[in-house]
Amino acid sequence: MNKEERSEKKIYNFSAGPSMLPPDVLASAAAELTNYDGSGQSVMEMSHRSDEFEKILHDAERDLRDILGVPAHYKVLFLQGGATLQFSMVPLNLFRKSKRADYITTGAWAKKAAEEAVKFGDVRIAATSEESRFSYIPKVEKADIRPDADYVHITGNNTIYGTRFPYTPDTGDIPLVCDASSGILSEAMDVSRFGLIYAGAQKNIGPAGATLVLIREDLIGFAPKETPVYLDYKIHADSDSLYNTPPCFAIYIAGKVFRKIKEEGGIAAMEKKNIEKAEKLYRAIESSALYRCPVEPADRSRMNIVFVTGNAALDKKFIAEATGAGLLNLGGHRSIGGMRASAYNAMPMAGIDALIAFMREFEAKARG
Amino acid sequence: MNKEERSEKKIYNFSAGPSMLPPDVLASAAAELTNYDGSGQSVMEMSHRSDEFEKILHDAERDLRDILGVPAHYKVLFLQGGATLQFSMVPLNLFRKSKRADYITTGAWAKKAAEEAVKFGDVRIAATSEESRFSYIPKVEKADIRPDADYVHITGNNTIYGTRFPYTPDTGDIPLVCDASSGILSEAMDVSRFGLIYAGAQKNIGPAGATLVLIREDLIGFAPKETPVYLDYKIHADSDSLYNTPPCFAIYIAGKVFRKIKEEGGIAAMEKKNIEKAEKLYRAIESSALYRCPVEPADRSRMNIVFVTGNAALDKKFIAEATGAGLLNLGGHRSIGGMRASAYNAMPMAGIDALIAFMREFEAKARG
Repeated sequence: MNKEERSEKKIYNFSAGPSMLPPDVLASAAAELTNYDGSGQSVMEMSHRSDEFEKILHDAERDLRDILGVPAHYKVLFLQGGATLQFSMVPLNLFRKSKRADYITTGAWAKKAAEEAVKFGDVRIAATSEESRFSYIPKVEKADIRPDADYVHITGNNTIYGTRFPYTPDTGDIPLVCDASSGILSEAMDVSRFGLIYAGAQKNIGPAGATLVLIREDLIGFAPKETPVYLDYKIHADSDSLYNTPPCFAIYIAGKVFRKIKEEGGIAAMEKKNIEKAEKLYRAIESSALYRCPVEPADRSRMNIVFVTGNAALDKKFIAEATGAGLLNLGGHRSIGGMRASAYNAMPMAGIDALIAFMREFEAKARG
Repeated sequence: MNKEERSEKKIYNFSAGPSMLPPDVLASAAAELTNYDGSGQSVMEMSHRSDEFEKILHDAERDLRDILGVPAHYKVLFLQGGATLQFSMVPLNLFRKSKRADYITTGAWAKKAAEEAVKFGDVRIAATSEESRFSYIPKVEKADIRPDADYVHITGNNTIYGTRFPYTPDTGDIPLVCDASSGILSEAMDVSRFGLIYAGAQKNIGPAGATLVLIREDLIGFAPKETPVYLDYKIHADSDSLYNTPPCFAIYIAGKVFRKIKEEGGIAAMEKKNIEKAEKLYRAIESSALYRCPVEPADRSRMNIVFVTGNAALDKKFIAEATGAGLLNLGGHRSIGGMRASAYNAMPMAGIDALIAFMREFEAKARG
């Protein structure tokens, strides 16, 4: 498909992130890109200390608190640097007593988070599914956690291996930290069960360049004196995310996404739709003779559905032909290959249907 | 002026940053916001590892290298975290031998940079103009620098106090580091005189959320092992700014700004226009009986023109009435008061003319 054809035909972008955003969010951003709300300015041109931008920031925080049910004793921070910077900020700030942390490693990003924390304290892998190529989520109980750990870290949804924590580990009084980059806003989440939740924006929140952090207030203020200033949660919390110039435009788009979720029935409505989309796609995989999902059924992700034919050359052909049909970015992560369909909130059921139709056609052709 | 009036009337935004962007850059971004170059996607939706985005990133780097004359042995990095994160990254990466650095403090941001570096090594203030409220730029010679310093740090343009380095200090073999946040792309710069140049995007480059770093290759690779991974220049240099998801949309807008500068005659054309704008405004200040610029003439900024009436209540009235007339954000930084007209590349001469006309009217009324 060439450019001219693509611009006329509907495409579906199954990228693991950045990925699709709601079309009406983009249309409304386009309509006011040069003149926001009669201000005569683009949001990109506004001082971050202007009344206009402070309202955008305030409204985004309010709507997020509403849809996710963020308790009042949690701070909402909009930062930069992605989950990668959080891999460092979490240990730097949360190693406040024993300097011990327990990590549950359920994929490549979880491992990266744990490897980074080793720089700052004593890290133990409390559980892992690495021995089975991360094809399931280990069951972790309180007894598996060191009782003096400063925190426990999990990755709620694993984009590469296509798994999702189907339960929230009970860590008692030990703060539970969750990298929720690829799951946040896709399903209900009891924020009060966590000490800290972080998420890069570029899956369900908005464009790349903003990072969301929800942190329980009693966990703020423990970064050592020599912590780089930007990496201290207290600095940002005390300034309500305006210590330095924030990623204003990304926050503005995130605010539109939050409002849209609210208008469309909140997280419960998103979750229902996501379950339907994922179940439909997993059923199509299971019912075929060609495709196979390597993930334990109970632990399958609703956001990133991985599957293979078992033949690397055929997988490659599938991905190339799908691209030609307007089904983009279906290649699995470069570290594992195969196929991956990422279906965040903004992926409509029509995209899933188009993918399933293509899968059936491809299977029929492959059988000859 | 209410919203309806503002949206019809031309406004000029004199904010210190984020601030005005070229109108045609915004118009072209609006036109392709939902469908970039026939891809069927917004740039905000594109995988950062897609061919489309890699081309955007590559073209932005190429155009920046062209207009600024970045030598081949310098890496161009697009990061997040603003100048504030650079305040930490510079010492963490450049303290490679003596762990000594000399800072020239010419304003509040320079002081913040120096205070941050103290966390990581031995920092000496080689020169400062603080005793005169930062109203001039000290003359620094090689003899003022510790011969074993790992680097020397300057702030090229000082947004709050309205000063600009009219010369590049000679530091011999010692790498010179410049926070060029508010001066970059506004005037010619011999990059080869610097070891490292950094700049938050939100003045002359593009929207907030991207940070530009130019670093001489031989200075890369010295961060201690315990450095937070995002803060190691080597990590980003080895991955050409794609170690983690970059601020894609901000880079895309920056690329449009670079291309526009190229098409309009390059940095030389920008510099000529900026000199004309600043000289006209300073002449208007000097020739009035009401306004006064507190900055030493030779050291005056072309980007941030500060002035006062000498009467705080009258300054406040000026700012309020100017806002009513569509001349926005003329208040000086909250730490010093008075007026500040920030006139980055995107501020047209018509904005300067409108401000001067308003200043004359206000002066006439003030005299009664």
